[in-house]
Amino acid sequence: MRVMGIDPGLRNMGWGVIDADGSRISHVANGICHSAGGPHDLAARLLSLCSQLTSVVAQYAPDTAAVEQTFVNKDAVATLKLGQARAIALLVPAQAGLEVGEYAPNAVKKAVVGVGHADKRQVEHMVRLQLPGIVIAGPDAADALAIALCHAHHAQSAGRLAAAVRRAS
Amino acid sequence: MRVMGIDPGLRNMGWGVIDADGSRISHVANGICHSAGGPHDLAARLLSLCSQLTSVVAQYAPDTAAVEQTFVNKDAVATLKLGQARAIALLVPAQAGLEVGEYAPNAVKKAVVGVGHADKRQVEHMVRLQLPGIVIAGPDAADALAIALCHAHHAQSAGRLAAAVRRAS
Repeated sequence: MRVMGIDPGLRNMGWGVIDADGSRISHVANGICHSAGGPHDLAARLLSLCSQLTSVVAQYAPDTAAVEQTFVNKDAVATLKLGQARAIALLVPAQAGLEVGEYAPNAVKKAVVGVGHADKRQVEHMVRLQLPGIVIAGPDAADALAIALCHAHHAQSAGRLAAAVRRAS
Repeated sequence: MRVMGIDPGLRNMGWGVIDADGSRISHVANGICHSAGGPHDLAARLLSLCSQLTSVVAQYAPDTAAVEQTFVNKDAVATLKLGQARAIALLVPAQAGLEVGEYAPNAVKKAVVGVGHADKRQVEHMVRLQLPGIVIAGPDAADALAIALCHAHHAQSAGRLAAAVRRAS
């Protein structure tokens, strides 16, 4: 199963792709889609992010995708921006026919680090432990790989549960 | 010049298309794209809105589009939802190669009603006065037509200004 994680952001949209075969996890690729520009170029920036992310999905052909359920409570403008970036992160894999999972930040941290209140460095450290030797494009790509790992763990648990139910019935 | 206005919303995305020929304005069509479902269907809902709006753009082939710069300060969840819907409203015309104007709600009201603090009924009333006899699909479609009227007014003013500069130089 090939899993894509996406960490949404208007300026930097992180993505990470892994292969999960039972408990064997391997790294495929990771990167960051960038969109520069000011508040008046919003449509062009969203279009650019959409094109870049569509190319990544076409190139790596994941079977499933997941996006972090991020909330910014700082201010309405920041939250609106994030919402706009998230829409692209959700839309692009859906356009490719994929189901898109969503995980709260704490669920991602718990799956990757073991506790829900880990900081960013701990998350990146655990991503590197689980995918040794990889080059990570930046913090947003590390987060995206963490989301992919979380999604793979959840999918495996769901699969094991379904198998156990089949055995029991 | 054919102008499309879009009033972004996750459940109800209003759209309105008008033709503007100098000061002559005529109605082409208006409607509402719907997306039902809960918070777990977000990717599917955004995909549905994107498909519906893409069909509208393909059918009516506007030359330019505009979206309202809406802010919700109520809560972060509502603002995030609106941001996600706005992304689709901005992305779809950009994908069709259109420039997408953005107007603050007060600018739309000022252009259509003459004052920046008009209520929704006044806006709809003035839309009906400027586009007599039309059937409006709902309040979101009336807002979308108001945005289209605002964009047409601004484009005409910009055109007149450019013509005056050419005459003076």
